[in-house]
Amino acid sequence: MDKSKSENAAILIIGNEILSGRTQDLNFSYIVRALSDYGVSVLECRTILDDKNEIISSINTLRKKYKYVFTTGGIGPTHDDITSESIAEAFGVKIETNEEAYNILESYYNKNNYKFNEVRQRMARIPIGAELIPNNISAAPGFKIDNVFVFAGIPRIMQSMLKESIKYIEPQKKINRANIQVKVPEGEIAKILEKIIKTYSDIDIGSYPFFDSKKDFGVNIELSSKNKLSLEKAISYLKVQLSEESIKYK
Amino acid sequence: MDKSKSENAAILIIGNEILSGRTQDLNFSYIVRALSDYGVSVLECRTILDDKNEIISSINTLRKKYKYVFTTGGIGPTHDDITSESIAEAFGVKIETNEEAYNILESYYNKNNYKFNEVRQRMARIPIGAELIPNNISAAPGFKIDNVFVFAGIPRIMQSMLKESIKYIEPQKKINRANIQVKVPEGEIAKILEKIIKTYSDIDIGSYPFFDSKKDFGVNIELSSKNKLSLEKAISYLKVQLSEESIKYK
Repeated sequence: MDKSKSENAAILIIGNEILSGRTQDLNFSYIVRALSDYGVSVLECRTILDDKNEIISSINTLRKKYKYVFTTGGIGPTHDDITSESIAEAFGVKIETNEEAYNILESYYNKNNYKFNEVRQRMARIPIGAELIPNNISAAPGFKIDNVFVFAGIPRIMQSMLKESIKYIEPQKKINRANIQVKVPEGEIAKILEKIIKTYSDIDIGSYPFFDSKKDFGVNIELSSKNKLSLEKAISYLKVQLSEESIKYK
Repeated sequence: MDKSKSENAAILIIGNEILSGRTQDLNFSYIVRALSDYGVSVLECRTILDDKNEIISSINTLRKKYKYVFTTGGIGPTHDDITSESIAEAFGVKIETNEEAYNILESYYNKNNYKFNEVRQRMARIPIGAELIPNNISAAPGFKIDNVFVFAGIPRIMQSMLKESIKYIEPQKKINRANIQVKVPEGEIAKILEKIIKTYSDIDIGSYPFFDSKKDFGVNIELSSKNKLSLEKAISYLKVQLSEESIKYK
């Protein structure tokens, strides 16, 4: 994982229904996977209420800290959809009816024989200076303002908006990864891992214990680096160290 | 959902492996469900890196904002387990070997024929002033300091620690909930929902659209309130409004 905040991303999940446990979030892991194809890591995720002050303060913290911020939820037509206006306020810009968005919505509702009523017209309100992100599922667009991408919360729609946004992502050098699993407790390998960290400064090591039962437990060691050669050397070194301690690995 | 921050909870998930997508978090939804049995809502969740500054600043924000904070991850024996020392620093207290924790760990490792080595002894280091939270699975305890509960990341162990911590939770009046599903788009019911909010100030209404296919879409309307009578009245009122607009519901 590349941990430079100014080069990577944060996700802001907006919605009471996620916090209440009513709806399971499916967007976080989808965004993480999609971005990792472009060498971009997600370094922070916040899940917050549909609350104007929370949205404003989270956006203003995250957009300064990270290269990209992705928000999900709260851009529909009902009373609890307050993301767009809150983001306008976070950026200190006005929100108004966007002509392009209005036309897209009007033609979609006409075609589908629904009234393009007042509440639906609200979805055409977009912060000034934002670029629209097309919604190929149900027309109401998301938008991008500066480094903040504002997506719908419904997974199918979110996925479509993310696809339309990939053109804005600057691809970075991919991270190389390797996994080694040992069937001993974490306390048996902690010293070995410390040695590797000291020897290979450009390697990131994660130590993830699992404990499925008293008989099936161990540690997944994850090594990662943008430097492939260095990663290969570190793995060889780790294997030698494990063998010296008679610890089996796979 | 009771949205008073000073009466409710936040969760802080600590771990690179969650952000990288390598490990799926299972603790968030478990904690949400367990707390809701005691009338406590989770109003914010943050997922952050194993990074000292991130842990300190998140803890110091969340513990002042919410009645309870639950953290998961980063209390094992390896180099990336830095939660305990970071939390001590957030509270401005020292961390040192806790005699009770040391004895628990020593007897556990002796019994299981593992060396109680230096790295394992690290798990006995607990911030001064904290109370231990027992770990009935693998001995190494969590702890509670002021309103912050520090749990392991492995779900089975986290669940055991949460069970041991329930005695500290002050039960609140439970929230009554009701769901009504309509098979029309959200834009058809937004005005009706606004009417209900204006009429019943102690009712919380969530509007959660679903869009499984062009034929199967609609909205789940969730009403909730600590006032049962008020909730019943609001539901009747909602049903009348939907009927007047010829919108079917279930």
